Amino acid sequence: MKTIAVILSGCGYLDGAEIRESVGALWALSQHDVEVKIFAPDAPQVVVMNHYTHKATGETRNILAEAARIARGKIEPLSHLSDLDYDALIMPGGFGVAKNLCTFAAEGASGSILYKELQNDITGMHSDGRPIGAICIAPALIGLALKGKKLELTLGADGAEAEEMRKLGHTHFVTKPNEIHVDEKNKVVTTPAYMYDGAPIHEVFEGIKKLVDEVIRMIG
Amino acid sequence: MKTIAVILSGCGYLDGAEIRESVGALWALSQHDVEVKIFAPDAPQVVVMNHYTHKATGETRNILAEAARIARGKIEPLSHLSDLDYDALIMPGGFGVAKNLCTFAAEGASGSILYKELQNDITGMHSDGRPIGAICIAPALIGLALKGKKLELTLGADGAEAEEMRKLGHTHFVTKPNEIHVDEKNKVVTTPAYMYDGAPIHEVFEGIKKLVDEVIRMIG
Repeated sequence: MKTIAVILSGCGYLDGAEIRESVGALWALSQHDVEVKIFAPDAPQVVVMNHYTHKATGETRNILAEAARIARGKIEPLSHLSDLDYDALIMPGGFGVAKNLCTFAAEGASGSILYKELQNDITGMHSDGRPIGAICIAPALIGLALKGKKLELTLGADGAEAEEMRKLGHTHFVTKPNEIHVDEKNKVVTTPAYMYDGAPIHEVFEGIKKLVDEVIRMIG
Repeated sequence: MKTIAVILSGCGYLDGAEIRESVGALWALSQHDVEVKIFAPDAPQVVVMNHYTHKATGETRNILAEAARIARGKIEPLSHLSDLDYDALIMPGGFGVAKNLCTFAAEGASGSILYKELQNDITGMHSDGRPIGAICIAPALIGLALKGKKLELTLGADGAEAEEMRKLGHTHFVTKPNEIHVDEKNKVVTTPAYMYDGAPIHEVFEGIKKLVDEVIRMIG
């Protein structure tokens, strides 16, 4: 049976993994005969946001413990990812990706991946030809990790984030929430999801299901 | 356009709303031409659980602010629910329902609803013939609120929770995660979801979609 690694960055779109995108990815994966293993860093979040007031709370929360809310406890520290012989990687979005996993939110194209094992894993997957699916802002992290690899990817509309990707040598494609972009050569599949803030959730899920189906097709 | 109220009890199955069930309900509702309004109590959670270690953390968290993570900020305090002219109510499960919204987790059939406006709203809906959809453990709250009304409902397998419902004069029906039970007379629709701990998420979503479709059909 094929094994798919899913990486979460917390629990909540303003300071962690986008919850609906994470659940959508697990729902789409559940429809395939694959094993799913979920990972998150055992480290503090960069910030904790009150999602009602949209203000920082000053609290400290652990990324792994918060992501475990989505994973219903079935989750492992990101440091275990390198030990796993997995066939594909799926990464939902949320500000957690751009703050807790890399420095894209603060530094754009000059940013870097915060966990060396994650950088090494993505570099290794790319050279092995194993597929990666990235949702919402997660393609920006993949773009940072694989700078100069001339990826094709989507971050939804052609905004500031797309411009940062071009600085890294990648090509940006405009898509809608229910669409994906497939980079067949680099085996990178992307969908914009909540890069469109008010997107209907069933359209976001349609895009995520297409992404998951395509990633699993690419494993072969 | 019909308006559906969704009540959340936090964000995480051990101390709040079950995240996947909440997202599943919003996904299923998004496929209908209805307006969705999300509510949660502006009050502290009864407990905060670390979902990785399964231990209480001793922290304090606000139910509304945590539920806002699932709602992406588009949420109102439960006290506003009574001001809304809504056509149906959907309640996802999670321990938050049985701890933050009522005392079922601690007191079973002797328990009560913790928010008077919620008790009044459910009583009012039932006498008006407006439908209620309750997922996972949420049927137990509806059972408490409508004790003696001889509801038909499901909490999955016939366990201790079902026995508590019988003490209140209700009838329990065994169902699987992808099934619903329809009480046509009382207009109460229920599905067990993660009452089956290891249920595949796409089966849980199948049950929730059937529940939402049936509730909207009942509005007429």
